[in-house]
Amino acid sequence: MKIPPVKGTRDFYPSDMAVRNWIIDGWKKVSLRNGFEEYDGPIFEYLKMYQIKSGDEIVEQLFSLKDRGGRDLALRPEITPTLARMVNQRISSLPKPIKWFSVPRLFRAERPQKGRLREFFQWNIDIIGEDNVLADAEVIFTTIDYLQEVGLTQHDIKVKISSRKLLAASLNNIGIPESQHSCLYTLLDKYRKIPSDIFEEMLVKQVNNPSIAKRIIDFMVAPTLPDLIQIVGDNPQVQNAIQELARLDYLLGQMGVGQYCEIDHSIVRGLAYYTGVVFEVHEFLSQELRAIAGGGRFDNLLSDFGGPQVPATGMGMGDCVLEILLRKKNKLPKEIDKRHLDYFVAFVDAQFFEETIRVAMKLRRAGLTANFSYGPAGLSKQLKQASAQQAKKCVIIGEEFKNNQLVVKDMSTSQQKVVSEKDFFEELGSK
Amino acid sequence: MKIPPVKGTRDFYPSDMAVRNWIIDGWKKVSLRNGFEEYDGPIFEYLKMYQIKSGDEIVEQLFSLKDRGGRDLALRPEITPTLARMVNQRISSLPKPIKWFSVPRLFRAERPQKGRLREFFQWNIDIIGEDNVLADAEVIFTTIDYLQEVGLTQHDIKVKISSRKLLAASLNNIGIPESQHSCLYTLLDKYRKIPSDIFEEMLVKQVNNPSIAKRIIDFMVAPTLPDLIQIVGDNPQVQNAIQELARLDYLLGQMGVGQYCEIDHSIVRGLAYYTGVVFEVHEFLSQELRAIAGGGRFDNLLSDFGGPQVPATGMGMGDCVLEILLRKKNKLPKEIDKRHLDYFVAFVDAQFFEETIRVAMKLRRAGLTANFSYGPAGLSKQLKQASAQQAKKCVIIGEEFKNNQLVVKDMSTSQQKVVSEKDFFEELGSK
Repeated sequence: MKIPPVKGTRDFYPSDMAVRNWIIDGWKKVSLRNGFEEYDGPIFEYLKMYQIKSGDEIVEQLFSLKDRGGRDLALRPEITPTLARMVNQRISSLPKPIKWFSVPRLFRAERPQKGRLREFFQWNIDIIGEDNVLADAEVIFTTIDYLQEVGLTQHDIKVKISSRKLLAASLNNIGIPESQHSCLYTLLDKYRKIPSDIFEEMLVKQVNNPSIAKRIIDFMVAPTLPDLIQIVGDNPQVQNAIQELARLDYLLGQMGVGQYCEIDHSIVRGLAYYTGVVFEVHEFLSQELRAIAGGGRFDNLLSDFGGPQVPATGMGMGDCVLEILLRKKNKLPKEIDKRHLDYFVAFVDAQFFEETIRVAMKLRRAGLTANFSYGPAGLSKQLKQASAQQAKKCVIIGEEFKNNQLVVKDMSTSQQKVVSEKDFFEELGSK
Repeated sequence: MKIPPVKGTRDFYPSDMAVRNWIIDGWKKVSLRNGFEEYDGPIFEYLKMYQIKSGDEIVEQLFSLKDRGGRDLALRPEITPTLARMVNQRISSLPKPIKWFSVPRLFRAERPQKGRLREFFQWNIDIIGEDNVLADAEVIFTTIDYLQEVGLTQHDIKVKISSRKLLAASLNNIGIPESQHSCLYTLLDKYRKIPSDIFEEMLVKQVNNPSIAKRIIDFMVAPTLPDLIQIVGDNPQVQNAIQELARLDYLLGQMGVGQYCEIDHSIVRGLAYYTGVVFEVHEFLSQELRAIAGGGRFDNLLSDFGGPQVPATGMGMGDCVLEILLRKKNKLPKEIDKRHLDYFVAFVDAQFFEETIRVAMKLRRAGLTANFSYGPAGLSKQLKQASAQQAKKCVIIGEEFKNNQLVVKDMSTSQQKVVSEKDFFEELGSK
C-alpha cells in the first residue's frame, strides 16, 4: 500500500537536510556568541495556552489533539507561550536578564502557501527582565548578525523599525479610544500587504471617519519625525516614544549595523501583545516575499501567563521564507548538498576483504568518515562506488599489503602513493 | 492564568538542553563517521501509515489528529514508516546501499513511566539495499561505536544478538505452524521481562502443549549452538541461520567490538516484521532498565509500504533510557550544564558604557561569546554578574581606555593585564 505524505509537510532527503542543518547551525552559532542560552519545550501544550496571547481565532489555525484523559491539546504554532510558562515556573531562581534562544519546530493547520507551510522551523531569541531599549537593540543586532553571517548585505535586506508606544500615543492624539487600538493593529498590519485603495476603504470603514483614516495613513508614511509630530500633534507620550526610537537608532549605529536599519511607521505587527519597539526584516526594495523575521517588546508576556510583570523583548525568524531568499540571492554554499566522505576503502582481491573492513573501522575510530563495499566486487566497480559517494580519497588494499603497505589515492587528482599502514595512521593521528 | 505542562513531556531549560544536545551531537557525529547520511520526515503522517507495520493495536498508542479535510493523521511513534515511504518515492534514483540516519522526535500516548515518556528522541540508523550480514554487523558496530564514544565499556553494556531465521526454523522443527509465529514473537519477547513461572504458564496456554513450551524455553536458553541443535533438531534452514550468526560473530570480532557482543536466543523483539538478525543492547548484568537500543533485519520493509522487495537492516536508540544509564554510570561530562561565556565586558564608569557595547559586539563578530551589563551598574555588581554567567574572562573599560587600552581579567585566577585594544583583537584573530 502506497501512502502519500501530508500536504504542507516536507521530506528532508539528505540534500535537503544539509540545507536545514546549515540554516539551523547558523542560528545556533550566532545565538551563542551573542550570549543567548538554548532551551526548548514540548511539541504540544494544552490548547488554552495558545488562546491567551492570540485569542480564540488561533484555534482554527491549530492542529488539535486530545490526551488520554480527553483534555484538549494543540501542536505548538509558536514557542512564546511555552517560554512564558517555563520562565514563570522558575521566575525567582533564574538570574536576570534571561537571554534564551530556541529553534522549535512549529505547526499551522493553514492552507500551505509559498513560504508558509504547515510544519516549519523558527529561530526565537528573547531577553526577559530588561526594560532598557538596549535589549531591543541587542535583539535586532543578533538578528542582523545572523543575516550578515549568511552573506546578506544592506542591499539584500532592511530592518524596518517602529514603536507601538508611538503608534498608541499617536492614535490617542488622533482621537481613537484605547479600547479600539488592538483591532486596529490587525488592520494596520495589512498596510503594505494589500492594495492601498482597498486598505483605505477598510480603514475608513473601521474608524468610521475619512479624515481620521487619512491622518493615520499620513502617520504611517511620515518621512521624518518632525513631519510625524506635525500630523499627530505633540505631547509627552509622543515625545517619550520618539526619544526611545532615537536612542535605539543611535545604539544600532554604535553596534555597527545602522546601515541595515530604518524607521518605518507602517510596521505595526498584527498581534495586540506588543508594547514597545516592533520591527520586521524585509527583502530590500521588494514586496515579493513575506517578512523574513519580526519581533519587538512585549512587557506583559509573563503576567499574561499568570506570572509577575517583567519586561521582555524578542524576535522570531522562520526557515521557509529565509530559504527562498537565500536561494534567490544565491547565498547557499555551493557544495552544501555534497556528501562528505573522507575515505573509501577498497580491495584488489577478495583475500583482502577482511583487512578492508578492519582498516575502514580503524579510520572511523580515528574520527574520519569511511565507507567500503559490502560484496566481493571488482576494484573498478568499487572505485566507481567511491566516486558516487563523493569520497575525497581511497585506500586500496592489494599485494602491497603483504608488506603492510596501503595505496592511498586522491580522488580529485587521481594521484596515488604507497605508504605503510603504521605511517598512514600516525600521520592521521597527528592532524 | 497559570497552565501546567502536559504530563509525560519535558521542558528543556538550558542545563537540560545541554544534556540533550550532547547526546544528539554524539549520535550525529558517530553516524557521519560511519558513513550514514542524515534525513528527516514530517512530525505527522496519515494514521494508516502506522497500522501497516504495527497493526491496529498501535492506534491507541498514537496521538491522533485531523487535517482540515477531516483525514486522520497521527504524530509519529517511530520514523521507519516515513523512511520506507521516502525511499520508495525515489527507489530508482537513490544509489544503493542507502545508509541513512535520523534523530526524530517521537510520540506515544501511553502512561508515562521511568525511561518511557510521551515525547522523546530516538537515534535511527538504517542500511537499505544490502542483504549481506556484513550490513547487520555494521549497524551493530555503529551502535557500539557510539556507546564507546560516551564512555560505556563491555562492563557497562552488552549487545545481545539472535536470529529470527533461526527462531522461525526452530519453531517449525518443534512443530509450531508458521501462521502462529507472529503471535508467539510478541509473547516470547516478554521472556526476560516477566517472572518465569508466569511466562511459562502463558506459553503453555498459547502453544497448548507443555512439552512444546518446554522445548521453546530450552531453545531460548541454549548455552551453545550444539546444545541448540540437540533441542530443536537439525535441518538446512537451521544450519543456514547458524552459519549466518557465526559469520556475524566473526565479523564483529574483526571489527574490534566482539567483547561487547554475545549470542542470546531469548532476544526476540516483539514486532513481526523482523526477518533475520535481531539484537538488543542491555545494561550488563542488570535487568533494572529497559533495552537501551534494539534493531535487526527487516527485508520486507519497502514492499510492505508498496515498494519493491529490497533488503534492509537498522537500529533505534531512545534518549530516555540512555540518559538514565549515563547518569547512573556517571558518564555525563562534569561541566555539561555550565554556561560557556568567553568574555564579559564591563565598564568602570558610565562614560565608557558605549565603548563597552562596541567592544562586546566586536568580540561577538570575532566569533566569541560575549555579554555586558545593560544598565549603569557599578563595577563590582558587573563583575558579580560576570561570575553568575560563568564568564571565563572579563574585559574592563576604564581610565586606561583613554590610551586605547583595555584591562583583561582572568576570572579563574583573578589575574589582570593591561593591553591595547589593537593588540587584544589581533591576538584573538590569530587564534
